[in-house]
Amino acid sequence: MTKRDYIIRQIAKTNKKNYENYVVTRIYHLLNRTDIKFITQQYVNRPEGHALTDMYLPQIQLHIEIDEPFHKKQIESDIDRETDIIQATEHHISRIKITEDLDSINNQIADLVKKIRTKIKSLEKSGQWESWNLDKEFNPNHYREKGYLDVQENPAFRKIVDACNCLGQNYKAVQQAWFKSKIYPNHNLWFPKFYENEDWDNRISKDGTVITEKCKNPEKYDAWFKGVTSNLVKRITFPRSVDNLGFRLYRFAGIFETDLELSSIENGVIHRLKETRIEIKKDDR
Amino acid sequence: MTKRDYIIRQIAKTNKKNYENYVVTRIYHLLNRTDIKFITQQYVNRPEGHALTDMYLPQIQLHIEIDEPFHKKQIESDIDRETDIIQATEHHISRIKITEDLDSINNQIADLVKKIRTKIKSLEKSGQWESWNLDKEFNPNHYREKGYLDVQENPAFRKIVDACNCLGQNYKAVQQAWFKSKIYPNHNLWFPKFYENEDWDNRISKDGTVITEKCKNPEKYDAWFKGVTSNLVKRITFPRSVDNLGFRLYRFAGIFETDLELSSIENGVIHRLKETRIEIKKDDR
Repeated sequence: MTKRDYIIRQIAKTNKKNYENYVVTRIYHLLNRTDIKFITQQYVNRPEGHALTDMYLPQIQLHIEIDEPFHKKQIESDIDRETDIIQATEHHISRIKITEDLDSINNQIADLVKKIRTKIKSLEKSGQWESWNLDKEFNPNHYREKGYLDVQENPAFRKIVDACNCLGQNYKAVQQAWFKSKIYPNHNLWFPKFYENEDWDNRISKDGTVITEKCKNPEKYDAWFKGVTSNLVKRITFPRSVDNLGFRLYRFAGIFETDLELSSIENGVIHRLKETRIEIKKDDR
Repeated sequence: MTKRDYIIRQIAKTNKKNYENYVVTRIYHLLNRTDIKFITQQYVNRPEGHALTDMYLPQIQLHIEIDEPFHKKQIESDIDRETDIIQATEHHISRIKITEDLDSINNQIADLVKKIRTKIKSLEKSGQWESWNLDKEFNPNHYREKGYLDVQENPAFRKIVDACNCLGQNYKAVQQAWFKSKIYPNHNLWFPKFYENEDWDNRISKDGTVITEKCKNPEKYDAWFKGVTSNLVKRITFPRSVDNLGFRLYRFAGIFETDLELSSIENGVIHRLKETRIEIKKDDR
């Protein structure tokens, strides 16, 4: 996909949402930089539940919400079981209020564009600005060079094999979702589906900190439970999801450890978020 | 309708046409002036037939066409019998070519925006720039102050009564489409439908210069033909149409005179465009 196609598709998500289309295109065109990435209709986890932001600028962790009078957003019902929902705890939110007066809307957008420009300039000045680069954003080598994955930055990969190789597995192809790490002692790489499927009923809490794992096969359940709770490993976790354009995504969710106290035959196995960041060991490959 | 609603609706016409939406919003937002009017998907008459322009800036008589590879426009089949089709003989056309490279598209738009700004500045300098004003554009008094109607400027009214009063008829309400002028000797005001309807089958040529008028009632035909061709009047003509947002429009098409040589019982009555401009007599009201 080219940047052109990406931008066009993101804007196309605002089809038929006329005010969204106006605001999103105005912000984007007035920013007038092809090194800025944006995502329209990004689901985020908030303490009070899921929320949908109309425009998300990941490089500056800014969400823009367009407040339309008499227009209540459908949220939960639109969420697919594979919907990509990001953590946005320390992200900022700006609001554009749709008023009767076009000048007032335009003035709000002008202020916001100014604010975004200032933020980018300050990042550029401190060397923290990352230009949007389609070749880099899901590229394992990009993250290897960077040296870490941090939940705060919402890093993601398109394929399981890419996430594996980013962490030094050095695979050609993979067909599973559970790997013993070659690099990190007592760690496994895990690519769970957080929705009920044929074999598993795994869930993650809305704040992204608690995973409940349940085997669905009654005949295997006891053996699985005993195995998991007696042979403890840390789980470098990349939940499987689909982004807003329909592409597969494995987004780093952190390192989880099993909570033996809360785990039970009835409740399943509980894993808790322990680390939101993993350092990438480069020389071990 | 407010400017906000107007702009939003014009942009909404590009829904599902993703490149059009990108280009139209980018031009509009980068121009960044609420005194510029634009129309998306305006039909125009060209010597070779009807054409559809993607964005039309009436104040500077500029049409923008967005050339998409592999995308052939449907024209004739989309034209409704009431579609507003304007004359664009001396209008300019700019093209934006959709290329693979986003920067190339953006550069073309930047050049075009610069060109538009220069044009507006030169009109402002010479006192010919007319700010877009929703209260004025279909207002009879606005044209009375201006002092003329000129086909070149595509003036139009929302109601027959407005066009009548602009030309000094001084009506409260009207229920017909054919009026003897109180001001212009031997002139009538005419608001024809240029498509076949219950009573009439009237047509106008694509270049807007020749009208064919035919009564559809066989019993009245001969009397009508004799009346029209013996009692010659000049016709100040405002064809009835519907604009791209679905609103009724009576657009000034000029003053027509009957061509007795070409008229015949078989062909109907032929009227020819004689004047593209009418001076508004102000003091006669």
